[in-house]
Amino acid sequence: EHILDESKKYITFNKRKIKKINILEGRTIFNLFFEDSTRTRTSFEVAAKRLGADLINVVVKDSSINKGETLLDTMTTINSMNPDVLIVRHPEEGISKKISESVDASVINAGDGSHEHPTQALLDLFTIQQVHGSLEGCKVAIIGDIMHSRVVRSNIIGLKKLGAEVVLCGPKTLIPKFITEMGVTVSYDLEECLAWCDVAMALRIQLERQGKGTEFFPSLREYHEKFGIKAKHLEAYPQFKIMHPGPINRGVEMESLVADNERAVILDQVTNGVAVRMAILYLLSGGTRI
Amino acid sequence: EHILDESKKYITFNKRKIKKINILEGRTIFNLFFEDSTRTRTSFEVAAKRLGADLINVVVKDSSINKGETLLDTMTTINSMNPDVLIVRHPEEGISKKISESVDASVINAGDGSHEHPTQALLDLFTIQQVHGSLEGCKVAIIGDIMHSRVVRSNIIGLKKLGAEVVLCGPKTLIPKFITEMGVTVSYDLEECLAWCDVAMALRIQLERQGKGTEFFPSLREYHEKFGIKAKHLEAYPQFKIMHPGPINRGVEMESLVADNERAVILDQVTNGVAVRMAILYLLSGGTRI
Amino acid sequence: EHILDESKKYITFNKRKIKKINILEGRTIFNLFFEDSTRTRTSFEVAAKRLGADLINVVVKDSSINKGETLLDTMTTINSMNPDVLIVRHPEEGISKKISESVDASVINAGDGSHEHPTQALLDLFTIQQVHGSLEGCKVAIIGDIMHSRVVRSNIIGLKKLGAEVVLCGPKTLIPKFITEMGVTVSYDLEECLAWCDVAMALRIQLERQGKGTEFFPSLREYHEKFGIKAKHLEAYPQFKIMHPGPINRGVEMESLVADNERAVILDQVTNGVAVRMAILYLLSGGTRI
Repeated sequence: EHILDESKKYITFNKRKIKKINILEGRTIFNLFFEDSTRTRTSFEVAAKRLGADLINVVVKDSSINKGETLLDTMTTINSMNPDVLIVRHPEEGISKKISESVDASVINAGDGSHEHPTQALLDLFTIQQVHGSLEGCKVAIIGDIMHSRVVRSNIIGLKKLGAEVVLCGPKTLIPKFITEMGVTVSYDLEECLAWCDVAMALRIQLERQGKGTEFFPSLREYHEKFGIKAKHLEAYPQFKIMHPGPINRGVEMESLVADNERAVILDQVTNGVAVRMAILYLLSGGTRI
Repeated sequence: EHILDESKKYITFNKRKIKKINILEGRTIFNLFFEDSTRTRTSFEVAAKRLGADLINVVVKDSSINKGETLLDTMTTINSMNPDVLIVRHPEEGISKKISESVDASVINAGDGSHEHPTQALLDLFTIQQVHGSLEGCKVAIIGDIMHSRVVRSNIIGLKKLGAEVVLCGPKTLIPKFITEMGVTVSYDLEECLAWCDVAMALRIQLERQGKGTEFFPSLREYHEKFGIKAKHLEAYPQFKIMHPGPINRGVEMESLVADNERAVILDQVTNGVAVRMAILYLLSGGTRI
Repeated sequence: EHILDESKKYITFNKRKIKKINILEGRTIFNLFFEDSTRTRTSFEVAAKRLGADLINVVVKDSSINKGETLLDTMTTINSMNPDVLIVRHPEEGISKKISESVDASVINAGDGSHEHPTQALLDLFTIQQVHGSLEGCKVAIIGDIMHSRVVRSNIIGLKKLGAEVVLCGPKTLIPKFITEMGVTVSYDLEECLAWCDVAMALRIQLERQGKGTEFFPSLREYHEKFGIKAKHLEAYPQFKIMHPGPINRGVEMESLVADNERAVILDQVTNGVAVRMAILYLLSGGTRI
């Protein structure tokens, strides 16, 4: 809640012509991306620069330094350059935690495998607060690939902690067993969920999983048929807002008309993402003056 | 003319030891390059940083987000981070225009397919003014691959508007039909053009088109023989200056002796490019203070 | 010695919360990396930004502009943007020197083929000074792939000039003939070297050379057996410190226990690298004010 409150001040700040405040001047922040993510990487870069910090990008897709111990050597090496914050996106689950135990710098998890993506969850919480007023009692349906989503796990933890009710919805093959132990309900009926919820959060279907004999459902068309949010749902259930962490597969997770409808707050999520990340960076590395 | 005038002040500025003025402080500028172009990308980056703006590079060569609608989603996503200017290089013709209709930020076309490259044309106009005094009545020969050049179309529009005479010269296969409707003359005789012109602007031959059964002329040697500018031309016609948008294929568009001759203003074009882009960025996103 | 002295002031500076001094404000510095090197590239980037300079990264791995004359055209092009310093990493030996003869900007060699890597040598000298007090009379053993290391040649030049004694140690196949003409001694006996030296500097074995019929020794295991520094050596010879330019192949050049021992100053080398590079950048492009 402290992070969410701190984020608010940056929303108006980011709409100014001169979006610059040097409260993080002289801080060195590394963006360490071992997987592509234009959206998350640039969101952090914009946030850091608007606060006056020096931002160093390291984008490494080569697998050469993608392995356990050597990665830690890379991190302690970078740590020896006296950075203040390391922002890490990496395919290995739990790696940010491991790194944080080896370095002095603060470490922000910008997505670790299909495990967690806490800053995305925080911007989602912020957005839900914005549209619903409070998270307490808010009804959130999360729809789609629950299994492989790192966003969903962080979101469940945050939503539950702040008093929201969560229903997960998707094909059986994409809903992990025992997920209900996190305090959520599971439904296989999209209509039921949409009738119930205040917020429908669709998750991205990773198209690269399809067509390789590793499918979790028969076809994208069938997925869309059963779990895609459609214009008719907007009419039938006029109460819910639409969220998506992006990038959207139009015609899969939702019809284009839904993505572009005024009840979709997908672009607000992006706008809020910069503000939330500014708050996080400031809280981690600011503090000597404001 | 307003842009060209504004550019002048940055020429001397860029020669100083301290090349920094914070008139764009707090502005967020994105370099969005969907094709490689070290020259254009860095020119914009240098321009933005010298004006004190925050510059975010996004270099995407993967085709995954190279397609129509999805690209617009990427752009509206970035637009939601409240940037001031998006600089876009993309292989699709007309895409910058489309993007500008979907976002609040100003959009600069840094090359769209073989369609246009307006900032290159502006720096060319600036350079011609510098060497010839005025564009009014200036005789410009543009030599080479007229068909695939995005520079040439922007240049013709600008040159004609400011009163220059333009002759295009190259192999018949590389000169589009109907191009004369843009108010230019076509010649297939290099000597004739060089005897006539004040400025000879050679265009880059894209070597990657050769040797794939898609050639537009028999060989690079033959091209050079007929359309390459040679040291003997410099002697025979002492009046013309040499321009080239770069990178040069030495021994193809011109002999090395020509590229390195003092009548070549090819490196001046690069120097002027930074100044022109500073002017454009300032005119688009400055304005609250100077 | 002037560079080493200048570097000292940045060691404490880099430990501050606000690591920023704008003595290079308005300078434009290019990082031109034609080979991967996260470590060296980011070290220079951190150094430049902490001094307030504008740093432009150009990372080019495509071979298209990796050839002699065309590379010089790229460099004169960038030089025409009025940069102050070009930092160049390139696989061709001697290329930085060639570039420096074609441009106005200062050129820093950040590694040219297997020829030289002077800023790495300077940070090594700085580190040895730190642990040994003085370079005069300091006994340095350099162990491993002497043949392909660019660091070793720069180090020998610097170490000899400042009065250190140098012994090279490694498999015969990896020690070039005539190297003793640089004023160094050669040994094939690791134990002898470790018993003698104040500092043992292990060089990286390039694993990519192994297993392709181009090996210089039978196996990594055998290399480690004969030339790897082991925990038992730390016990047997309590006087020597351990250095490595990184990245380390744990279990090859040294056991993990050695790399992580308090007598290893490998991470200090990284920390010192930023300071040394700040000194070099300041000495090259500062000077109008402090």
